[in-house]
Amino acid sequence: MERLFKQLDFIIEADKLKNIIRRNYISDGSKRENDAEHSWYFVLTAMILSEYANNEIDVHKVLKMSIIHDLVEIYAGDTFIYDEQGKESQKERERIASEKIFGLLPEDQKIYYLELWNEFENNITNESKFARSIDRIVPVLLNMKSNGIGWKENKIGYAQVYEISSRIAGGSSRLWHCIKEKLEENKDKGLFYNNELQ
Amino acid sequence: MERLFKQLDFIIEADKLKNIIRRNYISDGSKRENDAEHSWYFVLTAMILSEYANNEIDVHKVLKMSIIHDLVEIYAGDTFIYDEQGKESQKERERIASEKIFGLLPEDQKIYYLELWNEFENNITNESKFARSIDRIVPVLLNMKSNGIGWKENKIGYAQVYEISSRIAGGSSRLWHCIKEKLEENKDKGLFYNNELQ
Repeated sequence: MERLFKQLDFIIEADKLKNIIRRNYISDGSKRENDAEHSWYFVLTAMILSEYANNEIDVHKVLKMSIIHDLVEIYAGDTFIYDEQGKESQKERERIASEKIFGLLPEDQKIYYLELWNEFENNITNESKFARSIDRIVPVLLNMKSNGIGWKENKIGYAQVYEISSRIAGGSSRLWHCIKEKLEENKDKGLFYNNELQ
Repeated sequence: MERLFKQLDFIIEADKLKNIIRRNYISDGSKRENDAEHSWYFVLTAMILSEYANNEIDVHKVLKMSIIHDLVEIYAGDTFIYDEQGKESQKERERIASEKIFGLLPEDQKIYYLELWNEFENNITNESKFARSIDRIVPVLLNMKSNGIGWKENKIGYAQVYEISSRIAGGSSRLWHCIKEKLEENKDKGLFYNNELQ
């Protein structure tokens, strides 16, 4: 049973992701989203929109990658995508965290999930590029639905959202085309901290 | 773009799952779990423990099934597994809800996900049997970690937990063997509303 006990320890530890709070709000603006909610929403979105990937992708792999992509934040915390200072130390904090969380698993699964997480981070394969596009899309959808509450609270202007969101094109130029239009349509509707173009 | 707009409407509507609150608590006992957190935790657990399925399973299908299994609760609400009265109307409430939520998708995806959800409900295929075992395991793990807070609050005794949990064997006799031992070990540790045997 030793193998199963290790797996159960990992699963129990992973529950802590439900207490890691992100900067963006859920769509009705009633509360900030946590990482577990985000991870489910991410994997649902990736599954429904997989047909829009720029290149052929292994959807099963994208789903597995999406499920585990934020587990490191249990120890490393959530780094806001617009936080330039936080991003400097993020890589090292998350690398250490990845060894700690996946290290709870039996050796074969530890190796597999560490590699999968690194693949997501390195953003080279078609699957990781698509998954990272989805990671950019979901907070935009939620902010657009909640009147930009998260953007305004964190003083994020139109130009910053546009720049970060343009990275969606790396995994799906069709999805970026759609999100770009939606951003432009909403530019003057009070969703952003400011509407400056840079 | 009509197809993509339908998919985005579905994704935005699905966000409401983050407001559907379950009876059980997360592992540190600090709050009750919502359906989005549960769905992520469910799919993670299914992925990590897939090797214990009684029969050969298509893991990709299990993951997709797990991701969408509770979406109907956006309209039908969460029905507590120990609520005999609520369970009487559950089937019809959830059937109507399934048409409503998956009906937002383009026709081909509507058909696919409705069938997948029905497969989960009908509990006949190997994939659905395994997924339903996981649905039984996760609240037991969380209750065992949080000193049975959800069981005691809802007046659930040892015999009820044992009976419901025994259904784990339908998808994984090895996992039931482990959970059974853990329940027996914890019987006298104050986790249950009472320790009566029936």
